[in-house]
Amino acid sequence: MAGNSFGTIFRYTSWGESHGPAIGCVVDGVPPRIPLAEADIQLYLDRRRPGQSRFTTQRREPDQVEILSGVFEGLTTGTPISLLIKNEDARSRDYETIKDSFRPGHADYTYWTKYGIRDYRGGGRASARETAMRVAAGAIARKVLGESVRIRGALVQMGPHKVDRAKWEWSAVDDNPFWCPDRQMAQHWEGFLDGVRKAGNSTGAVIEIVAQGVPPGWGDPVYGKLDADLASAMMGINAVKAVEIGAGFAAAAFSGAENADEMRMRGGEVEFLSNNAGGILGGISTGQDVVLRFAVKPSSSILIPKRSVDRHGKEVEVTTKGRHDPCVGIRAVPVGEAMMAVVLADHLLRHRAQCG
Amino acid sequence: MAGNSFGTIFRYTSWGESHGPAIGCVVDGVPPRIPLAEADIQLYLDRRRPGQSRFTTQRREPDQVEILSGVFEGLTTGTPISLLIKNEDARSRDYETIKDSFRPGHADYTYWTKYGIRDYRGGGRASARETAMRVAAGAIARKVLGESVRIRGALVQMGPHKVDRAKWEWSAVDDNPFWCPDRQMAQHWEGFLDGVRKAGNSTGAVIEIVAQGVPPGWGDPVYGKLDADLASAMMGINAVKAVEIGAGFAAAAFSGAENADEMRMRGGEVEFLSNNAGGILGGISTGQDVVLRFAVKPSSSILIPKRSVDRHGKEVEVTTKGRHDPCVGIRAVPVGEAMMAVVLADHLLRHRAQCG
Amino acid sequence: MAGNSFGTIFRYTSWGESHGPAIGCVVDGVPPRIPLAEADIQLYLDRRRPGQSRFTTQRREPDQVEILSGVFEGLTTGTPISLLIKNEDARSRDYETIKDSFRPGHADYTYWTKYGIRDYRGGGRASARETAMRVAAGAIARKVLGESVRIRGALVQMGPHKVDRAKWEWSAVDDNPFWCPDRQMAQHWEGFLDGVRKAGNSTGAVIEIVAQGVPPGWGDPVYGKLDADLASAMMGINAVKAVEIGAGFAAAAFSGAENADEMRMRGGEVEFLSNNAGGILGGISTGQDVVLRFAVKPSSSILIPKRSVDRHGKEVEVTTKGRHDPCVGIRAVPVGEAMMAVVLADHLLRHRAQCG
Amino acid sequence: MAGNSFGTIFRYTSWGESHGPAIGCVVDGVPPRIPLAEADIQLYLDRRRPGQSRFTTQRREPDQVEILSGVFEGLTTGTPISLLIKNEDARSRDYETIKDSFRPGHADYTYWTKYGIRDYRGGGRASARETAMRVAAGAIARKVLGESVRIRGALVQMGPHKVDRAKWEWSAVDDNPFWCPDRQMAQHWEGFLDGVRKAGNSTGAVIEIVAQGVPPGWGDPVYGKLDADLASAMMGINAVKAVEIGAGFAAAAFSGAENADEMRMRGGEVEFLSNNAGGILGGISTGQDVVLRFAVKPSSSILIPKRSVDRHGKEVEVTTKGRHDPCVGIRAVPVGEAMMAVVLADHLLRHRAQCG
Repeated sequence: MAGNSFGTIFRYTSWGESHGPAIGCVVDGVPPRIPLAEADIQLYLDRRRPGQSRFTTQRREPDQVEILSGVFEGLTTGTPISLLIKNEDARSRDYETIKDSFRPGHADYTYWTKYGIRDYRGGGRASARETAMRVAAGAIARKVLGESVRIRGALVQMGPHKVDRAKWEWSAVDDNPFWCPDRQMAQHWEGFLDGVRKAGNSTGAVIEIVAQGVPPGWGDPVYGKLDADLASAMMGINAVKAVEIGAGFAAAAFSGAENADEMRMRGGEVEFLSNNAGGILGGISTGQDVVLRFAVKPSSSILIPKRSVDRHGKEVEVTTKGRHDPCVGIRAVPVGEAMMAVVLADHLLRHRAQCG
Repeated sequence: MAGNSFGTIFRYTSWGESHGPAIGCVVDGVPPRIPLAEADIQLYLDRRRPGQSRFTTQRREPDQVEILSGVFEGLTTGTPISLLIKNEDARSRDYETIKDSFRPGHADYTYWTKYGIRDYRGGGRASARETAMRVAAGAIARKVLGESVRIRGALVQMGPHKVDRAKWEWSAVDDNPFWCPDRQMAQHWEGFLDGVRKAGNSTGAVIEIVAQGVPPGWGDPVYGKLDADLASAMMGINAVKAVEIGAGFAAAAFSGAENADEMRMRGGEVEFLSNNAGGILGGISTGQDVVLRFAVKPSSSILIPKRSVDRHGKEVEVTTKGRHDPCVGIRAVPVGEAMMAVVLADHLLRHRAQCG
Repeated sequence: MAGNSFGTIFRYTSWGESHGPAIGCVVDGVPPRIPLAEADIQLYLDRRRPGQSRFTTQRREPDQVEILSGVFEGLTTGTPISLLIKNEDARSRDYETIKDSFRPGHADYTYWTKYGIRDYRGGGRASARETAMRVAAGAIARKVLGESVRIRGALVQMGPHKVDRAKWEWSAVDDNPFWCPDRQMAQHWEGFLDGVRKAGNSTGAVIEIVAQGVPPGWGDPVYGKLDADLASAMMGINAVKAVEIGAGFAAAAFSGAENADEMRMRGGEVEFLSNNAGGILGGISTGQDVVLRFAVKPSSSILIPKRSVDRHGKEVEVTTKGRHDPCVGIRAVPVGEAMMAVVLADHLLRHRAQCG
Repeated sequence: MAGNSFGTIFRYTSWGESHGPAIGCVVDGVPPRIPLAEADIQLYLDRRRPGQSRFTTQRREPDQVEILSGVFEGLTTGTPISLLIKNEDARSRDYETIKDSFRPGHADYTYWTKYGIRDYRGGGRASARETAMRVAAGAIARKVLGESVRIRGALVQMGPHKVDRAKWEWSAVDDNPFWCPDRQMAQHWEGFLDGVRKAGNSTGAVIEIVAQGVPPGWGDPVYGKLDADLASAMMGINAVKAVEIGAGFAAAAFSGAENADEMRMRGGEVEFLSNNAGGILGGISTGQDVVLRFAVKPSSSILIPKRSVDRHGKEVEVTTKGRHDPCVGIRAVPVGEAMMAVVLADHLLRHRAQCG
């Protein structure tokens, strides 16, 4: 219910359309007395912000977040934190041409069939602009998790081109406009994506998110499992079509003897000898890294004309002008990190509620 | 919260351990005056029941469901429907040997770390036996959906062996013990799985679930999306490690021009020319078939010894005796169908709530 | 949603009709490793059980509760606790005569208008028999709260006859069949209620519930306030028409100078000099006794004929035969205590979730 | 959980402190294509606004509401409606003196014990200023309910002075600053309240809310009862200490023969001959007027010094300066109406969800 809220104890409610006056969210359930300032949130919003390279939409939004409640003298008070970002560079004219037409691969048609009305400007509520609020809520979630939990993401596949895991360097991720952990592949992608962009086309991607430092015991079986909540969180991000945890689809081809992660003792602690489980067994964290991947489809906002229909049942051809990302997967990296943080923060509080 | 309930308006709460006196569930929110008898539920339970071929566990449970409330004179009353199945063939002795040890790949260790106590008999609450209640709730969900929505599942990959989609026949699915839609592959799997079983090993699988007849407009953006709820539903099934909708991970390699499903008019109705979206755009159903796949890891209950530790921090070797499935993915087919039904029934009611 | 569940983290779901095979509930969110046996629950069920004096219904139900899950070797496991009570003395014939008629003051007519179907036997789902599950859940809630929180209830008014608060003795409550804290009034009520019963009539009552030992800080403003949740809990009990906290309605006639509970320090602790607030300010517990009262209307099951209509729109006269309580308020005392326990246990866990 | 949201399908989340930059709420689950403009909401906010007579606080807030999302071209879109009101006349200096002290009868002490931090300016989150968002959400709820449901409120008791129900005129309610339905009593209250105000004291009140046109069948037994939800809604309003439905506490003194509302047929419709039930039986609406009353305690913000303690455990005397209402019950009338609207709108959608 209430399709615009996420989480249970750490719970946020997002609102706003791409071309309305503002977007925002209300984050409820945050523990009191956590230091929080706008800069803590802005840091992550800036990572997601469009217009930072030629590979993301040229829409220029400063995306300055304002905290309107829930923080007093630099500390959270335990009351709801209201965040607001004004929409500034909203060129609604760009969308007049597709006012009545349904862009293939977009939510235009489905919003229309569901609600019988839609704000067609820039995708309205279905716009990826909403993900700014996920990032903002995620920034607060990281504060709740504290320093001991570290969440990082990387783009591991662009179009058909996958990174070489042997060349993985986390330090590389911030050195290229793709969040690519393989420096060599980052260079290759640059050429590939320029080609895609110049062709007025777009490409899909796969993102990997890793959370280190999650203690064992988080997750509520059997319908509030940590992996089920992560799957929901990631699949709910715009354009995501697939989610896998640990070995994921590859596990289907494994034998039981190959798949089970063996355990030994090391320095008095349980140590796993592999991590096919992706840090989750029976819906509960094992203490290993929580590892997941998700696939983002190529944006349907392309310059290549596609056959469609309009709301009057007329057949049309649609070309999406506007300013768009040739690979929306790039900006999905900070969004995926944020959703990981939100799910983990909620489960930290849920675990504490029941198990003390 | 309340980690043992699933759904919002159509909502069920499941309870019970593998080796306790019984398992059951309470299904709430069911519309009144729907004809419902135990046989309607038994039909689907029988499809999931163990012991039906040499390829599933030899535990023999008649799994006779009893309706204890919510149905009067053959019709649902709108009050909660309580279902109960007695546990009959529960050989707890089988588990004495692993009482203190954590079976690798199972939830033993994580339940222990979370709760500091676990019912070790047959996996306790983490047992796949719980999926019987998913199937039972799913049978009621199908009644809510009515005849116009048809949900079917198939095993499309066993270990490394995938079906040939060109040979797909839905009618084949009921003719082999694997729910395999490719008759030729079914024969191949028979030999393959016999080998796995005799080696005391196990194998993973991929299941595909298809729902036909879902009208456009179901799904609550942006955090109650139909695909996000399906992802949560499937990922929450025991041993599932991955979920994809429509083209899924393959979409990552597509270009935007390839991926967008074009639309035309046909007989006054909107027709899509492809279904890479798997019937969902922006979290809302398009009216096309809803199509998803999920991967089931190989069972960790194998005869091959694996290294582990026990609850006293001692290193041990674990071999799982008991009676187990060499490919738990087989029995996940009716479970996946059921979860599809549960999610759709909930979204039918949710859509009706908001949009009339 | 899901109108048969109560609570958020400590959450139970109740099911069953008065004359079905059984009633039961599933209690979820219980912390692990709490000692729990059927006897712990039976203790409170026995206090509520009918047929214990001539002042309660002569229906004889042993009301033996069975724990079907969630407890292992005498301790809660953190998984859902399923409770079941078989219905044994269900004389459905008694209800054949009112099968088609709507008893005035009962839920017959409203269930019919809502669902278009109803189990007319003994009130079906609307029967006060459901309150047995409230009492059962309450017994578990008391275990969660531990010894430091003490919850007691008393009948403080029967019909127009109120207890004299100057004569209040908690020890008197168990010495009479009315839970009356005023020994003298208890004697008076005996004669009064005999008269009511012999006249085939019934009478209303007011119950007071007091929780001692609740620490300050429980309650979630501004829509999960402790008092709002208590009001919901009590108003939801069958036949309850009013709820007040602390001074309640009397506070309307107070001036601000009279009403505000002053505070002083005593032995290093904050001490309140009065308790008009009933232990709750701004929706959060103050550390004083939590005190509430609720009014129970007289049962509509009386031998005096009343005008009504039937489901075919025909005017009829209705007399309720069956076996009924002349003062249903008596049995509401343990039910009110239970609901206090359930709300407090939930708020204990909710507070721990957010505030650690 | 998430203590700042109310409702299930029609659900709003409120945020903001009395002296922060703004307050607001997000209303989710609103059906699409309902005409809605800021003026529709402002109408009700103006009824609640302070500073309109000498009997309410002289704080001057224009309380201009802005709609930031969820409405497009004058119609609701089915996406969340974000509302915002800027705080303009916030004199925080007034509160410096009580920064460290706990005002008796206020939530100061309890917020402090719960969160270990509080925004002391004007009560922060506990301020009655939050009720503006209840009124705003209520205005949208009225739109959802449509013209056929009419919700009105009146002040029926101020201090010890009750209206004469024989003199009740709904038309009088708007003709005096008290929402008093008894013109004669309104005049009497004027003198009474002047006396209270001049004495630097305050007084309590009782409010009655009536909803006409509610069809039979709304309400979800047994834990989502219409009366339980109304009790929660009203008890959750600032300073409310008691709620009753229909005959309420008076029902305790009735006999069953007096209390049961008899039914007859009239013009083919069921007619009740009385309304002791207050329009609700078994938690479901009967089709009669839904009638409730609630008591508001006198404000603790008075000029008369009261004994208290401060956060350092020092004994102090507290006098509340600021600008305050001598009878906060007056402004609770539109708030009570709004909460009635919110509960009914939610139950309309909930009923439609399950029962079509």
